[in-house]
Amino acid sequence: MTIMQKQTIGLMTILLVLLPFSIYAASGNTGDNSHDISMTLLWIAVILLAAKISSLVERFGQPSVLGELVIGVIMGNLVLVGINVLEPIKTDSIIAFLSELGVIILLFQIGLESNIDKMKKVGLKAFLVASVGVIAPFIAGIYLVGPWLMPGLSSNAYLFIGATLTATSVGITARVFKDLKKLHLPEARIVLGAAVIDDVMGLIILAVVSAVVTTGGVGLGIISWITAKALLFLAGSIILGQLLAPKIGKLLSKVHTGTGMKFTVAISFCLIFAFLAQKAGLAPIVGAFAAGLILDPVYFNYFKDPAIVNDLKQEIADYDAGLKQKLMSVIHPYTERHVEYLIAPVGHFLVPIFFVLTGMNVKLDAMFNMPILLVALGITATAFVTKIVSGLAAGNVNKLLVGFGMIPRGEVGLIFAMIGKNLNVISDEIFSAIVIMVIFTTLLTPPILTYLLKRTEKK
Amino acid sequence: MTIMQKQTIGLMTILLVLLPFSIYAASGNTGDNSHDISMTLLWIAVILLAAKISSLVERFGQPSVLGELVIGVIMGNLVLVGINVLEPIKTDSIIAFLSELGVIILLFQIGLESNIDKMKKVGLKAFLVASVGVIAPFIAGIYLVGPWLMPGLSSNAYLFIGATLTATSVGITARVFKDLKKLHLPEARIVLGAAVIDDVMGLIILAVVSAVVTTGGVGLGIISWITAKALLFLAGSIILGQLLAPKIGKLLSKVHTGTGMKFTVAISFCLIFAFLAQKAGLAPIVGAFAAGLILDPVYFNYFKDPAIVNDLKQEIADYDAGLKQKLMSVIHPYTERHVEYLIAPVGHFLVPIFFVLTGMNVKLDAMFNMPILLVALGITATAFVTKIVSGLAAGNVNKLLVGFGMIPRGEVGLIFAMIGKNLNVISDEIFSAIVIMVIFTTLLTPPILTYLLKRTEKK
Repeated sequence: MTIMQKQTIGLMTILLVLLPFSIYAASGNTGDNSHDISMTLLWIAVILLAAKISSLVERFGQPSVLGELVIGVIMGNLVLVGINVLEPIKTDSIIAFLSELGVIILLFQIGLESNIDKMKKVGLKAFLVASVGVIAPFIAGIYLVGPWLMPGLSSNAYLFIGATLTATSVGITARVFKDLKKLHLPEARIVLGAAVIDDVMGLIILAVVSAVVTTGGVGLGIISWITAKALLFLAGSIILGQLLAPKIGKLLSKVHTGTGMKFTVAISFCLIFAFLAQKAGLAPIVGAFAAGLILDPVYFNYFKDPAIVNDLKQEIADYDAGLKQKLMSVIHPYTERHVEYLIAPVGHFLVPIFFVLTGMNVKLDAMFNMPILLVALGITATAFVTKIVSGLAAGNVNKLLVGFGMIPRGEVGLIFAMIGKNLNVISDEIFSAIVIMVIFTTLLTPPILTYLLKRTEKK
Repeated sequence: MTIMQKQTIGLMTILLVLLPFSIYAASGNTGDNSHDISMTLLWIAVILLAAKISSLVERFGQPSVLGELVIGVIMGNLVLVGINVLEPIKTDSIIAFLSELGVIILLFQIGLESNIDKMKKVGLKAFLVASVGVIAPFIAGIYLVGPWLMPGLSSNAYLFIGATLTATSVGITARVFKDLKKLHLPEARIVLGAAVIDDVMGLIILAVVSAVVTTGGVGLGIISWITAKALLFLAGSIILGQLLAPKIGKLLSKVHTGTGMKFTVAISFCLIFAFLAQKAGLAPIVGAFAAGLILDPVYFNYFKDPAIVNDLKQEIADYDAGLKQKLMSVIHPYTERHVEYLIAPVGHFLVPIFFVLTGMNVKLDAMFNMPILLVALGITATAFVTKIVSGLAAGNVNKLLVGFGMIPRGEVGLIFAMIGKNLNVISDEIFSAIVIMVIFTTLLTPPILTYLLKRTEKK
């Protein structure tokens, strides 16, 4: 064990001295205070510290998102061994909101690290990957996995099973690429672009499938309206990005009203776009990603943080004039706080909440039912194969990386399944199997992507 | 109008193009999506942009907290002219939580800017100010303002009116000192220290008054236990701060597991202390302030942000060796991100929510009732005079600055009044008058403090 490892362990020991005491105090909470937000404060601290402890997986070359998911799974299933002190986290509505806000901030950060011009270069490839990645699992769900694994169900059930397999949940993949600093790869951009297009297609499929199940047919008007809203939002974002972003950036660069301006403008753009995306029927993360693309940090570089600049100027005041000028020119870019650096702490605060909570919602006991588990494994295999196939449409890049990047399914699939359940088309058993599929695609993708990325590096 | 002002207005125009559209879309929201967090996202953006617009008050030398309060008052009372689109903000439980978290983060930031040694130097003065500032309004409430302005009430009612006048709400004053960069003044530390002690005293008074009203007497056991818990928390914090903080800081400085570690440790300390403070019966902000004092940033200076350091090293790689070394030594402190800089964006995100929401909860229509308004003005005058008197105990400093700094009353006073109302001791009319007193102390303090601070500067 190195000194650094010993120190890390020492640090964690000190840090965690307070936690058991706090949780003990928490367990004695009888709701005597009507104004008690303190439990939520404690849960946030517990989640953040757990996430940091789990980041030890980085020592084994794994992305920290894997650690966050795994520690979440452990925390969420402690109840299986009789420890239920952490159970309130799962039902805390504020933690749930912060978690959603976390993945919105993550996609905003990821949007900031790219821009619309770069995305357009991979646009066609992303479209092809998205199309194959939606059509293949939909067809496979309806005609193969459905009838084979679960014979005798209505065709409506097979329709819904197919639909739940279509939508990629891009958060996991995006986080893996970000953790491993690979967002600049064309494969990363293709997956991100395909996930956005995928979300639009999923929206249309959901509308069609719901209409078929409830009314027996498809109303062309409503489908066109749904599609139009989503496309209007995306087209509007792209046009706004191309026309206005440079101007907004230049304007902003000349305004100095406190250090918070740059941050507020950036985060407000993110939130308004997330809101508009949801109003257009898309996932809020699609809006946040679009906002990040529009706010290309290139246009955001010219803000000065007066406090840091003044500190620096004072510090070098005693140097001779020539050196002073050189110092200033070198220091220049670092005396201005890039928008990514401003957003990063909010990301550190909120993003781990999303992934730990995702892990916590994994119900390991669902896997104890062997017949359901077998069906789930069949659905999972389909989920894997059909998205790997979609990677073949990516052209002259690492097709496996794109294909595996498209694998994670998440909330959208679960929402589809929930709607199917509410329409009495999806049974409880099939719903459980779909949940298990989501778990497998979520937990297996990070190590596979890590392996593929490291293999590429070695070449 | 200067070019800069024109640009600011141009910028705001562009920024706000999306808002009316968004709010229009919001007003058509019929809750068709069970998973709709988008409204809260929009409200956060609305609040943050409103806060930034209101920061134009800085051009008139006023602290931006005043702008945030005033724009909050305007937004919250638009309903008086028939505009009720912003009303949902007031009842959004997530906005309420983010607002509370905002003031917790603010007091944490303010704690970070001081340390325990500096606080101990003003400890006695702070204790005297707190004592006078609790006893004077309590006595005045019971024997003067109560019987004079509201004759014929029970002695229990006067007891409660006195109690509501005791507790200083330190958020407003702290923010004014921070906005005007005056946190280093001894007056600022005295007010902060007195507010902490004040909170302990208020706690004891509430326990005594509640016991007197409900059981007709005071149980010494319960009072001792309440006091002991609060003092245990404070003493524990101070001892922990003195003994452990330097060691934790040095340990942390040697650990490099990603850039988020420093941030996570800091914010988790803040949250756990806020939690423990509330468990000890104190306000969560007292805990957050204590956490900030303990995490003296001096011990936190030695973290390196690998990304920035690498960027810098690459940038200066082409310079000659001698210059390179000089550059590195100058740049050194700025390649390491201070904990304040990491917390600042979270502050920019959450702190304005607290102050805008505080403004929004000001009910202007409460002031339309003349008899209540007159009683309220009498209570307000008492609230002002008794805390100004407390400043006289501050010794050899600007006594007026300390006295006026102690004036703002807030949540604690309202909680007392609410308990009194629930015990049928405080009538609806007196409750309204107390609310108006809180409004006046909140809104008048920032401009008065600003005036006093500028006058001191000129001397």
